[in-house]
Amino acid sequence: MSTTSKDSAPGTLGAPNARRSTMKAVAVLPGKPNSIHLRDVPMASAHDVPNGRGVLVRVLRVGVDGTDKEINAAEYGKAPPGDDYLILGHESFGVVEAVAPGVTEFAPGDCVVATVRRPGSSLYDAIGLQDMTTDDTYYERGINLLHGFLAEYYSENADFLVKVPTVLLSVGVLLEPVSVAEKAIGQAFEIQRRLRVWQPKRALVLGTGTLGLLASMILRLRGLEVLAMGKTPRPYLNADLLEPIGVGYQSTQDVSIAEASRTHGPFDLIIEGTGYSPLVFEAMESLARNGVLVLLSVTGGDRRIEIPADRINQGFVLGNKVLVGSVNASRADYMTGVSDLAQAELAHPHWLDKLLTHKVRGLENYRALMDTLVSGTNTIKVYCEVAEQ
Amino acid sequence: MSTTSKDSAPGTLGAPNARRSTMKAVAVLPGKPNSIHLRDVPMASAHDVPNGRGVLVRVLRVGVDGTDKEINAAEYGKAPPGDDYLILGHESFGVVEAVAPGVTEFAPGDCVVATVRRPGSSLYDAIGLQDMTTDDTYYERGINLLHGFLAEYYSENADFLVKVPTVLLSVGVLLEPVSVAEKAIGQAFEIQRRLRVWQPKRALVLGTGTLGLLASMILRLRGLEVLAMGKTPRPYLNADLLEPIGVGYQSTQDVSIAEASRTHGPFDLIIEGTGYSPLVFEAMESLARNGVLVLLSVTGGDRRIEIPADRINQGFVLGNKVLVGSVNASRADYMTGVSDLAQAELAHPHWLDKLLTHKVRGLENYRALMDTLVSGTNTIKVYCEVAEQ
Repeated sequence: MSTTSKDSAPGTLGAPNARRSTMKAVAVLPGKPNSIHLRDVPMASAHDVPNGRGVLVRVLRVGVDGTDKEINAAEYGKAPPGDDYLILGHESFGVVEAVAPGVTEFAPGDCVVATVRRPGSSLYDAIGLQDMTTDDTYYERGINLLHGFLAEYYSENADFLVKVPTVLLSVGVLLEPVSVAEKAIGQAFEIQRRLRVWQPKRALVLGTGTLGLLASMILRLRGLEVLAMGKTPRPYLNADLLEPIGVGYQSTQDVSIAEASRTHGPFDLIIEGTGYSPLVFEAMESLARNGVLVLLSVTGGDRRIEIPADRINQGFVLGNKVLVGSVNASRADYMTGVSDLAQAELAHPHWLDKLLTHKVRGLENYRALMDTLVSGTNTIKVYCEVAEQ
Repeated sequence: MSTTSKDSAPGTLGAPNARRSTMKAVAVLPGKPNSIHLRDVPMASAHDVPNGRGVLVRVLRVGVDGTDKEINAAEYGKAPPGDDYLILGHESFGVVEAVAPGVTEFAPGDCVVATVRRPGSSLYDAIGLQDMTTDDTYYERGINLLHGFLAEYYSENADFLVKVPTVLLSVGVLLEPVSVAEKAIGQAFEIQRRLRVWQPKRALVLGTGTLGLLASMILRLRGLEVLAMGKTPRPYLNADLLEPIGVGYQSTQDVSIAEASRTHGPFDLIIEGTGYSPLVFEAMESLARNGVLVLLSVTGGDRRIEIPADRINQGFVLGNKVLVGSVNASRADYMTGVSDLAQAELAHPHWLDKLLTHKVRGLENYRALMDTLVSGTNTIKVYCEVAEQ
């Protein structure tokens, strides 16, 4: 097997020295709280991947989120077999450095984002829908049993990479969270084909973190009226960001979902992105007839609450309503995400940039990266600029 | 407008006397408990229906269920505008007596069943999916604002009639409840198209009344393993009926849904047919990954219960699970029902007959009909034989 690579010149792509055997990476020791550290790991190579399908990617940016925080807190996350460390990072953005001979879809210089979940053994894995796996064990890069992207390079099978046009260079690191929102919304539309005709008018987005903001944008691109609700009362940066894209904002401290539904609803589509489970059951009561409620967030814990069970059952049956859970994203969701990022850039220039609130330069500043994630103010998306383009 | 009618001969269809102005019907006075009575009402005619689309149907059998009981208890049900009474009966089976000139799909002598819900104003009504209406007011024959079928004759627009082959004559009165089960199962399969490939293996049916038994049969025809659960411990007629069609039975008094799931599951499809809302939330916890839980039954009341909200949310999100409510049925569900009734008769001759446990002859015996429905023993389907074929 041979790899090809663009000619390297100072300040351009910088092909890895053929003799280089290690690279820098940010990792944790799974099971050990706050074990985040910088380490030397074996250099990635397009040859790591079987069947000549390998792509070597030079990492430019990696976003971090609650998952990284929880892995560093040793709440979950496992090292790959044979290693005692797990390289962090599942929100990637990079540039192709080299490809193995079986790769025709990518060439050096292409910007790419990698999907996160990899096949286990289920039917859905076999047909490329790892986000729908029925296996007990998830294989997720940067999360469970597979190393992540918070490193100088990574190698990957071309099947799990998505090309990002150069015009989206500045916001490509948002593609992974966008893909999660795309799946949630895509599942709603897939499910609603049962109605033969679905003309949703009003949506409610619960939660206004990165996912909630991106979901609100996507729903606006689909032509829906959108109300977003979060815990924080105004003045609130995220509420201000929603205004120019025509999305209303209400704090759950000021009004209940039921009240918001009477004023702004009924909601044909509700996206629950807080993971605060009592909101799930409140939202079930405020869904329009024939509506769909998508759950895309979880929090740990074992909270028990009292609910009006009869009323929820009556509303769901008599109103033909749907509740669906959504996790991760398929390759198709990433591709829809690329289209929507482009449409968003065109319709609302520089809006996406404003979500990238906190940049930390260099892998060596991993400590600042985690500190910003945990206790930064007005944080939406925190990311590491691993390398200049 | 003129009507056509098959030649009448003694013992055959018996066209109504052209001068006949009234017919017998069983009705209630909405709002007045236990007001069920026999009365003379204006004779139905194919001319009652606009645009030459009328069909006059001679009623042979009408099934009764909990809805009729609750309407007679004045829990709900409204008379048509201008009348103070509501003719009962929404589970019909009859034979076409006469058709108006605009009707080409039916001819005198055809066996037919009428659907129940009629258009209001919603988009879904306009495209013939009244079961999916988003209107606040339902128009349902024998239930709300429209007279039912517990009469000697009824007239109807041909669009709302479904032809039943003569070979299904003895079980055709089951078509309305079959259609409700078909919709519930059909919605599950429609929704699961989101998975691209769905190969459900195991189903759980909660509730073993008429709907539960019919849903179990349909799922067996679809090739699924089926476990049914009901409150009643064995010996239990309904459990005995399930055995020859290869459906297991467990009493919820002996095992919980969670235990049944560990032994017989995981369940890719769960049909909740009891309307007992605590089971809804128990079932949500026992659904397989990528599974779908269909709710098709409601009970009145305002029960509140405590649930493990975090755990349910986590299971739904991480397992990509779906919950859907289903009410009523579309014309397409009736047509699928006809096919499945035929397949059931062929695969399990006379099994369907055994569901028709209690026959009451003649409209004049309406009191016995209601008494049997309310307090009969080993009742599955109770029906009125309005006329011999």
